[in-house]
Amino acid sequence: MKKINVGMVGYKFMGKAHSNAYRALPMFFPNAVKPEMKVICGRDPVGLEQARSQFGWESSVTDWRALVQDKDIDLIDINAPSDAHKEIAIAAAEAGKHLFCEKPLALTLEDSRDMLAAAEKAGVKHMVGFNYRFAPAVQLAKKLITEGRIGKIYHIRAVFLQDWILDPSFPLVWRLQKEIAGSGSHGDLGAHSIDLARFLVGEFKEVIGMNETFVKQRPIAAAMTGLSAKGGSDASELGDVTVDDATLFMARFENGALGSFEATRFAAGHRCTNAFEINGSKGSIKFDFERMNELQVYFTDDAEDVQGFRRVLATDASHAYMDAWWPAGHTIGYEHTFTHEVLELMNAIEEDRQPVPNFVDGVKCQEVLEAVDRSIAERRWVTISEL
Amino acid sequence: MKKINVGMVGYKFMGKAHSNAYRALPMFFPNAVKPEMKVICGRDPVGLEQARSQFGWESSVTDWRALVQDKDIDLIDINAPSDAHKEIAIAAAEAGKHLFCEKPLALTLEDSRDMLAAAEKAGVKHMVGFNYRFAPAVQLAKKLITEGRIGKIYHIRAVFLQDWILDPSFPLVWRLQKEIAGSGSHGDLGAHSIDLARFLVGEFKEVIGMNETFVKQRPIAAAMTGLSAKGGSDASELGDVTVDDATLFMARFENGALGSFEATRFAAGHRCTNAFEINGSKGSIKFDFERMNELQVYFTDDAEDVQGFRRVLATDASHAYMDAWWPAGHTIGYEHTFTHEVLELMNAIEEDRQPVPNFVDGVKCQEVLEAVDRSIAERRWVTISEL
Amino acid sequence: MKKINVGMVGYKFMGKAHSNAYRALPMFFPNAVKPEMKVICGRDPVGLEQARSQFGWESSVTDWRALVQDKDIDLIDINAPSDAHKEIAIAAAEAGKHLFCEKPLALTLEDSRDMLAAAEKAGVKHMVGFNYRFAPAVQLAKKLITEGRIGKIYHIRAVFLQDWILDPSFPLVWRLQKEIAGSGSHGDLGAHSIDLARFLVGEFKEVIGMNETFVKQRPIAAAMTGLSAKGGSDASELGDVTVDDATLFMARFENGALGSFEATRFAAGHRCTNAFEINGSKGSIKFDFERMNELQVYFTDDAEDVQGFRRVLATDASHAYMDAWWPAGHTIGYEHTFTHEVLELMNAIEEDRQPVPNFVDGVKCQEVLEAVDRSIAERRWVTISEL
Amino acid sequence: MKKINVGMVGYKFMGKAHSNAYRALPMFFPNAVKPEMKVICGRDPVGLEQARSQFGWESSVTDWRALVQDKDIDLIDINAPSDAHKEIAIAAAEAGKHLFCEKPLALTLEDSRDMLAAAEKAGVKHMVGFNYRFAPAVQLAKKLITEGRIGKIYHIRAVFLQDWILDPSFPLVWRLQKEIAGSGSHGDLGAHSIDLARFLVGEFKEVIGMNETFVKQRPIAAAMTGLSAKGGSDASELGDVTVDDATLFMARFENGALGSFEATRFAAGHRCTNAFEINGSKGSIKFDFERMNELQVYFTDDAEDVQGFRRVLATDASHAYMDAWWPAGHTIGYEHTFTHEVLELMNAIEEDRQPVPNFVDGVKCQEVLEAVDRSIAERRWVTISEL
Repeated sequence: MKKINVGMVGYKFMGKAHSNAYRALPMFFPNAVKPEMKVICGRDPVGLEQARSQFGWESSVTDWRALVQDKDIDLIDINAPSDAHKEIAIAAAEAGKHLFCEKPLALTLEDSRDMLAAAEKAGVKHMVGFNYRFAPAVQLAKKLITEGRIGKIYHIRAVFLQDWILDPSFPLVWRLQKEIAGSGSHGDLGAHSIDLARFLVGEFKEVIGMNETFVKQRPIAAAMTGLSAKGGSDASELGDVTVDDATLFMARFENGALGSFEATRFAAGHRCTNAFEINGSKGSIKFDFERMNELQVYFTDDAEDVQGFRRVLATDASHAYMDAWWPAGHTIGYEHTFTHEVLELMNAIEEDRQPVPNFVDGVKCQEVLEAVDRSIAERRWVTISEL
Repeated sequence: MKKINVGMVGYKFMGKAHSNAYRALPMFFPNAVKPEMKVICGRDPVGLEQARSQFGWESSVTDWRALVQDKDIDLIDINAPSDAHKEIAIAAAEAGKHLFCEKPLALTLEDSRDMLAAAEKAGVKHMVGFNYRFAPAVQLAKKLITEGRIGKIYHIRAVFLQDWILDPSFPLVWRLQKEIAGSGSHGDLGAHSIDLARFLVGEFKEVIGMNETFVKQRPIAAAMTGLSAKGGSDASELGDVTVDDATLFMARFENGALGSFEATRFAAGHRCTNAFEINGSKGSIKFDFERMNELQVYFTDDAEDVQGFRRVLATDASHAYMDAWWPAGHTIGYEHTFTHEVLELMNAIEEDRQPVPNFVDGVKCQEVLEAVDRSIAERRWVTISEL
Repeated sequence: MKKINVGMVGYKFMGKAHSNAYRALPMFFPNAVKPEMKVICGRDPVGLEQARSQFGWESSVTDWRALVQDKDIDLIDINAPSDAHKEIAIAAAEAGKHLFCEKPLALTLEDSRDMLAAAEKAGVKHMVGFNYRFAPAVQLAKKLITEGRIGKIYHIRAVFLQDWILDPSFPLVWRLQKEIAGSGSHGDLGAHSIDLARFLVGEFKEVIGMNETFVKQRPIAAAMTGLSAKGGSDASELGDVTVDDATLFMARFENGALGSFEATRFAAGHRCTNAFEINGSKGSIKFDFERMNELQVYFTDDAEDVQGFRRVLATDASHAYMDAWWPAGHTIGYEHTFTHEVLELMNAIEEDRQPVPNFVDGVKCQEVLEAVDRSIAERRWVTISEL
Repeated sequence: MKKINVGMVGYKFMGKAHSNAYRALPMFFPNAVKPEMKVICGRDPVGLEQARSQFGWESSVTDWRALVQDKDIDLIDINAPSDAHKEIAIAAAEAGKHLFCEKPLALTLEDSRDMLAAAEKAGVKHMVGFNYRFAPAVQLAKKLITEGRIGKIYHIRAVFLQDWILDPSFPLVWRLQKEIAGSGSHGDLGAHSIDLARFLVGEFKEVIGMNETFVKQRPIAAAMTGLSAKGGSDASELGDVTVDDATLFMARFENGALGSFEATRFAAGHRCTNAFEINGSKGSIKFDFERMNELQVYFTDDAEDVQGFRRVLATDASHAYMDAWWPAGHTIGYEHTFTHEVLELMNAIEEDRQPVPNFVDGVKCQEVLEAVDRSIAERRWVTISEL
C-alpha cells in the first residue's frame, strides 16, 4: 500500500482536526493512500510535545524551515495562523513538497497569487482547506445541481452566523487582530460561503459589501483564548479590535444568478450556522451546518398535491462517502469533512492530478474577499475582473 | 354601540380579505366600534354584484367618485390596483372621509406624499395596509424589542420569497406591468419587509440594491389571472415584463443596525415566505409567515446548559389579541392579520388618534423603496435623506 | 338560493366556533346551501343574549324543548355539555329536525346508540362534530391513503397532548367531573384520535388501555372557568377529580395495522398537539395540529438519493377547500375546520345523503372509547365486537 | 500512563464502532486510561485479517477460547452475534478479564443472569453496550431530570423506528432469525428505549405488549447482508422470518409514570429514529437520534409570553464531553457515543468501580424485554417482579 509522509505546521484547532482526519482515513477508507503522521511542528515546545503525543505524530520540530527541507516528508500541511501561510507554503513548494494549506491562503490576494505561482512552478499538488465542501449533504447539493435537477440557478443566499464574541468582555484574541488574522468574520466565515457559492453556483462577476465592528475595544487577553470561549476576561486594559465583526455583500454571478451573503459573529443563538439556500428553475436546496447531515430539497415537478421541501438525511449508502461509515440514519460529525478532504488529497496524489479545491480556488476566493473589501472602502460595485 | 359606515373600492383578493375582517370584528372583538359594510365599488357590474352578495355589502356602486361623495359614508377603504390609489384617496380626504388604503400607497414617492398631505390637510384618520404587523407573533417580536429583552439590535435579515411566476409560461398579469403595479417583487413583497423592519428595528439611513427580471417576456393573458395560479397559458403572443422579478438590498439603520433584504418571486418551494431574523445584544427572534403563529426566540441569559431558540406558539391568552380567539394552541390564519388591523383602525377612530401604521408609514416605506430603486439605477449607496 | 334554518343549543367555546362557521360559509363557499342563524338557545339569559348579539343570531330562547318544536327550524345544532346531548338529539329527531351534534355523542355507548336509532327512525340527516377531519392537510392524508400512495398500512401512532391542567391549583371545572363530561382526556381528546384513525386507517378490532389521574383533588371553582386558563384558583375547598388525566391504549385494526394512542392533559409544552403518524408499505404521513396547514409525506419510490419527508403546505389550490380561500402559502386557522364541516353538512342536506362523519361514526367512536375503558377496568384485551 | 490491553470478539458493525472508539479515546480524552488494541478475534480468517489491518489491531486469533486465556489481555470486548455472548462472557469472567458486552446481554433473561452472576463472582468490571446514553444531548436530559428541573415525571413515550426491511424482497439476514438474534425489533431496538427509560425515568413496574411480523417469509440470503441494505435479493427460495417486525408496549413505572413504547423496522422514512419525549410537572424534554446533537427542552416557569420548546444544540463546552471536541456548534457523530462509553469504562477501571451501565442494567433490561414477551404470549399485564 502506498503511503504519503506528512509534516504538519500548526497544532491548535485545525491541527487537531487534520490529525484526526489522518488517523481516521485508513480505518474508513482502507483503499486510499495512507497518510503517515511523521512530524508535527510548532513554536512552543511544551504545547507541541503534548499535541504530538495526543494526536499521534511520530516526532516534532520547532523550526518549520527544517521541516520543509526534511527529505523524508512528501506533504506539508499548513494550519498555523494565517499570517504564516505564505512563507511556509512557498518554501515547501520550492522544496518539492505537496501542499495542504488551511484557508484563507494568505492575508492578501497578492500573497495568495504568489503561493499559487510557487506551487505551479514547483509542479506539486496543492490543496486549500475548504472543508465544508466535503459534507455528504453538500456533495449531494453539488450532484443535484450538476445533474440539472435544480435547473438554472436564480438565487443563492448564504449566511455564516456565529455568536462567540457577542459578549463585549470577550478578550482580544488573535482572530480579532488584523495583522495576524487578515480579516474578521469576512475572511474567517465569509470565505467558506464564497467557496461554497463558487462550488455550487459558479464564478462571481461583481460585488458590493458593507461591514461593521460593533465592539471596537476589548480586554487584552493574557493568553490566547479558545474559539469557543463564551465568558469574559478580567483584564482591565483594552485594545482595539482591528477586524470586522460582520460583513455583508451582494453579488452577481457570471451565469446571471444573484447572491446575498452575510458573515457575522454577532448573531445570538447561532453557534455555527453555515447555511445557504439555492433557488433554481426546477427546484431549491437548503443546507445548515448545524444539521450537517441534512439537505432540504424541493422539486417543481413533484406531483402537484405533495410539493414541499424534503428533509433528506444524507446518510444512506447512496450518498457520497457514506458507504464507508455507518448504517443509514447514523450521523457523522463535523470532523469528517476533514477526513473526506484528506481522502480527496490522497486520491489526487495517487492519480497524479490536482486535488479540488486547490490553490486556484484559494486565489479565486481571495479575489472575491478583496473585491468586497474594496467595494466597502470605495462604496461602489467592484467587478472581480478589476483585480 | 358606535358604528362606522364603510365604502370600499376594490373587490378582488384584498377586497375579500378586508370584507372578511369587517365581518369578523364584531364577533371576536365585540367591544370595538362596529364597521358597517355599506357600499362596495368596482368597475365591472357583474363581478361587483357577485362580490357584494358574497361578501355581504349592503349596496354597490360602479363610480368611486359617487362613493366618496356619499354623505352616509365615514370611511373609504381603497384596495383597487395600485395606480388608482392616489386619485381616490385625495378625493376621499377632501370629502372628509377617513382613509384605509392598501399598500403600496402609490406608484411613486411623490404621489404618496401628496396623499399624506391631503389626509393631513383634511384632518381625517389614515391607515395603510401593512397587515403583517398584526400577526400575534409579530406583535410579540415588537413587545420583546420594546421591552429591551433582545437588547441593542445588530442585524436584521428579511426575505419575502414566493414562486408563483416561476413557470415562464405563467401569463403577463397586471402585477407584472409597471404602469399598473408600480414595481414587481420590490413594491409588492419588499414593501412588507421594509415596513416590518421600520416597525421592529427603526428608521433606515442608507441603502444599496440590485434587481433582475429573469423572465423578460410572458404570454399575454386573455383575462386577469389569479395570484395563486401555478399553471401556464396557451396564449402565443408575448408581452414584456416591465417589473422586477427579484430585488435585493443592503441597509444601514439610523441606530447602527445592519440589514439584508431580498424579495423574489423565483424561489421554488416558497409559497409565501415572509420571514425575518433579528439579532440583538441580548437575544434573537425569528419569524416565518408560513408558520405565522410561531415566533422563535433566543435569550443570551438563559441558563448556560439550556440555551437555544424557543419555538413560541403565540396563541396563549398572554399574546396579543389571542384572548379573543380560541384556547391556547388553536391557531388562527392569515386573514386575521386584517381583522386586527381593522381593530386598530376602529380603536383609533374611537380614541381620536391616528392609527398605526398610517400614511406617514406608507410614505416612509415608499422612501426606502425609491431609494433602493435609485441605488440600483445609479449603482451607488443612496441615503434616505436624499429623497 | 336554498337555505337551512338553524337552531343552536349551546353558546360557549363550541357555540362560538359553530356560529363562526355559519357566518363564514356563504362568504367562502357561496354556492353552498346557506345556513340561516335563526335561534340560539341556552339557560342563562344574560350570557345568552350577549352571545346572540355577538355571534349574530336572530333570536334566542332559554328552553330547548321549545326550540326543537319550532316549525321554522330545519336543523338543531347541539353543542351543550355532553350530558345534555342525548335528550335534545332524540327530541329534535322526533320533531323531524336534522341534527348536528358535537362529540362525544353521549356519555355512554348505549346512549349514543339510542341517538342513532332515533335519528334513523326519523329519517333525518345526522352529523357528529369530528372537526379535525376537515383540515385540508388531513384531507390530503385521506386522499393519499385512498389513492394507495402510502400502500398497505402497518402503523398508526396518535397522540393528543395538552397541558392546561398541569398546574395542581387549576380548578375543578366541568370537564373534570365525570357526571357532566363523561370522561376526561379519553373522551375529550382521545375521541378525536380514534375518529381520525377510523377515517384514515379503518375499523378497530381490539384494544387494551391504561389511564391515570395524576392530580386527584382540585380547588372547587366558584364559576365555570375557561378551557385555556393556565393559572390557579384561590379556593381553599377541594373536590375530587373524577375523570382521567391521561389515557393510553394499543390497538389492532381489522386490516392488520397496529395502533398506539395517547391522550393527556399533562404534557408540558403542548397546548394542542393533536398529532399522528401513519406508516405504510409505500410511504408515511405525519400531521400535527399545532401546524395544521402542514402535512409531512414520505414516499419509498422517490429517487434513492433524495428520499425524505416532505413538508407539504396544504394551502395550494390543489388541496381540499383551498381554492375558496387565499393564495398559496396563506394559512387558515383552526376555526375553518368547522367551516368545512358545515359545508359537508349543507352539501349532504342538498344532495339528500347522510353527511360524513355522522352518528354511525359517533357510535363507532364511542364503542372504541368504551372498549378501552372496559379493558382498563378488567386489565385485559377487549374486542370491539364484544360490545 | 496506565493502559488496558483489549481483546475483542467480533469485527462487523459493532466491532468497527468499538475499534474506532478505542482509537479516538486517547486523542480526545488524553488523560484517560488508554485502551491498547491488542487482539481481534473472529471465525473467518480472511475477513478477520482485513478487519485487523483496517481497524488497527496488533494481532488476531480465530479461537475466542484462546483469547480469553491470553494472560496479556485485561478486557474482553464481546460484540459477536447475540447467541455467542453468554459462553464467551462467562469464560472470560472466569479467566479474570473485565467485560464489555454489546446489548442484548444474551438471548434469554436466564442467560443474562448467569452472565451477571459469573462477573460478580469473578469480581471483574462489567459493562453493557447501551451506547445511546452517551450522546451529550441524552446526558443533558439526565442532568435536567436529576437536578429536578423537569419535576415529577408523568409520561415517557419512546419509539425506535427504522425502515431497512420494509421491502419484502430484503433477504433473511441473521437479525431476522430468532435462534441467532433472540428477537427482532424488540431486542434490537426496543432494548435501547427500555434502557433509556430506566436511565431517565426509573424502574418499570408492569407492562403489556403486542407485536407483529408483517412479512412472514423472505428470500434466503446467499451471504450475510449488511444492516443498511435497502434493495432486495435474487434468491427464489424463501425462509421463515422468526422474529417480530414490530413490538409495542405500555408500561407503568415504580414512580407512577406512564410509558408508551414502540419498536419497528416498518416505519417508512425513518432510518434510525431513536426518539423519546418525557413530560414532567415542571417541563418536558424531547430527543431524536437522527438529530443526536439536539435536545428540545420546555420549562413551565419560563416567562408567560415566551414559553416554548427550546432547541438546545448540545455542543457547548458546558455540555457533557464537549470540551474535549470542537468549538460550539460543531457537531459530533453517532460513533462517539461509543467513545464516551469507552471513556466511562476506562474511568471505572481506573477508579475501581463498576461502570454504568453494567450487567445489572443488562439484566434489568432483559427483564423488561421478557416481561413484554410474556405479556404478548399470555395477553395480560405482566409485573416485572413476576420474573
